[in-house]
Amino acid sequence: MNLKSITIALAVALVCGFSYAQTSTEGVKEDFKPSPLNQPGQEYPQVNSQGYARFRIKAPQADSIRVSLGLGGQGGTRLSKGSDGFFTGTTSGPMDEGFHYYHLTIDGGVFNDPGALNFFGSLRWESGIEIPARDQDFYALKDVPHGNVQQVLFPSKSTNMQRRAFVYTPPGYGKSTKKYPVLYLQHGWGEDETAWSNQGRANLIMDNLIAEGRTKPFIIVMTYGMTNDTRWGGIRDFKIDAFQTVLTEELIPYIDANFQTIANRNNRAMAGLSMGGMETHSITLNKPDIFGYYALLSGGTFNPDELKDKVKPHLIFLSCGSKERPDGVKKAVSSLKEAGYNAVSYVSENTAHEFLTWRRSLKELAPLLFRQN
Amino acid sequence: MNLKSITIALAVALVCGFSYAQTSTEGVKEDFKPSPLNQPGQEYPQVNSQGYARFRIKAPQADSIRVSLGLGGQGGTRLSKGSDGFFTGTTSGPMDEGFHYYHLTIDGGVFNDPGALNFFGSLRWESGIEIPARDQDFYALKDVPHGNVQQVLFPSKSTNMQRRAFVYTPPGYGKSTKKYPVLYLQHGWGEDETAWSNQGRANLIMDNLIAEGRTKPFIIVMTYGMTNDTRWGGIRDFKIDAFQTVLTEELIPYIDANFQTIANRNNRAMAGLSMGGMETHSITLNKPDIFGYYALLSGGTFNPDELKDKVKPHLIFLSCGSKERPDGVKKAVSSLKEAGYNAVSYVSENTAHEFLTWRRSLKELAPLLFRQN
Repeated sequence: MNLKSITIALAVALVCGFSYAQTSTEGVKEDFKPSPLNQPGQEYPQVNSQGYARFRIKAPQADSIRVSLGLGGQGGTRLSKGSDGFFTGTTSGPMDEGFHYYHLTIDGGVFNDPGALNFFGSLRWESGIEIPARDQDFYALKDVPHGNVQQVLFPSKSTNMQRRAFVYTPPGYGKSTKKYPVLYLQHGWGEDETAWSNQGRANLIMDNLIAEGRTKPFIIVMTYGMTNDTRWGGIRDFKIDAFQTVLTEELIPYIDANFQTIANRNNRAMAGLSMGGMETHSITLNKPDIFGYYALLSGGTFNPDELKDKVKPHLIFLSCGSKERPDGVKKAVSSLKEAGYNAVSYVSENTAHEFLTWRRSLKELAPLLFRQN
Repeated sequence: MNLKSITIALAVALVCGFSYAQTSTEGVKEDFKPSPLNQPGQEYPQVNSQGYARFRIKAPQADSIRVSLGLGGQGGTRLSKGSDGFFTGTTSGPMDEGFHYYHLTIDGGVFNDPGALNFFGSLRWESGIEIPARDQDFYALKDVPHGNVQQVLFPSKSTNMQRRAFVYTPPGYGKSTKKYPVLYLQHGWGEDETAWSNQGRANLIMDNLIAEGRTKPFIIVMTYGMTNDTRWGGIRDFKIDAFQTVLTEELIPYIDANFQTIANRNNRAMAGLSMGGMETHSITLNKPDIFGYYALLSGGTFNPDELKDKVKPHLIFLSCGSKERPDGVKKAVSSLKEAGYNAVSYVSENTAHEFLTWRRSLKELAPLLFRQN
């Protein structure tokens, strides 16, 4: 089955309201391969060309293992125990393309799959699996010049601690005195500052876009956005003040003092996914003199009323997956355009509130940034 | 119990051949606190001021959970199941200070502790626990200027792939055209290029030494050293050629082309722990024109015969834990000194073949490097 026919198969499955409750394995192609996100040398979990995932876990004396990946009516995929002491099972339907978090429930306790790499989501390191996407080339590790991702520890008086950020610098950064624009890019709820590089592959997306001459090179700064007690309490009581102080009064001055940045509004953007979009929305409205470009990835919308009487952004970018609420994004962009704003919408096909939506959104956003300088 | 009395207690335990097989909890101080390496918000595992570790794992329907940490005659610590569905247990003796890898065996399968962070060791991501050391200040995250640790992807023709290295740059790097010496620092068998920053805290050790004016600032480069098929086959068949090519013909030229290095022998050192020491031994002997300083941390020794007729290193540093073979290290250094070499030995008190030995070794080594330039 080639990529085109996979695409068609997926599209048909979606259009026909493919039932995840089925347990038959009829029609499941036996071309399973290890997930690209497995630990070194691990054969499982595996994925096939249709997007099915298969798991295999050793636990000879265990009674039950369930995989949380969202299929079936029982809250995931139940694995069956074989006489060899291994539990195995296959999802009852194809998964969406891209990255998914998951975990195992073993005899009532929650653990990670020892075969898979871990990614920080849901406030903890969880197992990750990757269903190769038809357009996976844009986030692949290729033989092109690579930028670096560096861990920065910066002092934060407002929170009385040393805080961490990751900074992507484009290929060639530092070899001359050239200065670069900066995108501040935020993760979602339950994730942290590692998410955009690990799950999001932001560095590889940028390396590939730059190699193709499709975007200006720029710096990306990623830090932890759950500064206040939303950490354990959910986002209901979210107040932006604590994070806004860290970002605008501590991190941005630190980055401008320590990296080769063009330190002005025309060369500073803010974007975030999900909760990070909510933060971007609040902070850019509160501090329109600091940021010239705003982007919300599955993270809400702007409306013209919120923006009036403020300095105008050069770009408002709103995106989401086609399985989220694309109409809301499109309508918001229409309203913004009517009101005279440079607004762009992007909808990722056949993806939901997951990282392939956001990888694709970054790929679409990057070339639109920093055109006014 | 203060730090000094802990030290004495540990020393007494060792001298008296403390039996790990005991299961009594008499004399165990109930001052347990979460391990510093727990996942965010996780209360367990915990450690007490004597170095005992306590575990608590939820798995209501499981039959047995064992913790691999090396105590007891049964290959670890067996946890007991409570009526609340949690398995709990305490090691039967105090652990050595510092970092330890471990995992859980749940009903016959191997999993990580969901409470602990993971560290790459034994060819996989394993749980880690930290027994705070009496001298923990030297590797603590403090309010001092911090260097950065950056992920570098470099092209490797010899292995036909993009390879990864991590590069520590000292505080202030890149703010002027100042160039720095470079230490190439290798991990041990089963670990990877993340080990020296994560388990080893090499960046924090350097930040603290530099803040105290105790070492010249220098760059540290850490890459993956298990280049050939030793990965799955153990180190019996180890051949140095593949890694030596990557290091000396690909990585070093890449670092010198992309970082502000002083690219000569007087400003280039190589060190490694355990298997990384074996690699350092082979590569420095094969390429004495490239490196001016050699360090083996729990990684064997040099003898004068190997070194004769070669350009003389400015320093040979040999170290290990007091629970390894310190006499071998000390004797080797005596022979080297007699033969006219600048050789230094270091023995880490009350530690074995584990990361506290190597953190301390790096702290001792750094101030001795790059004095000839």
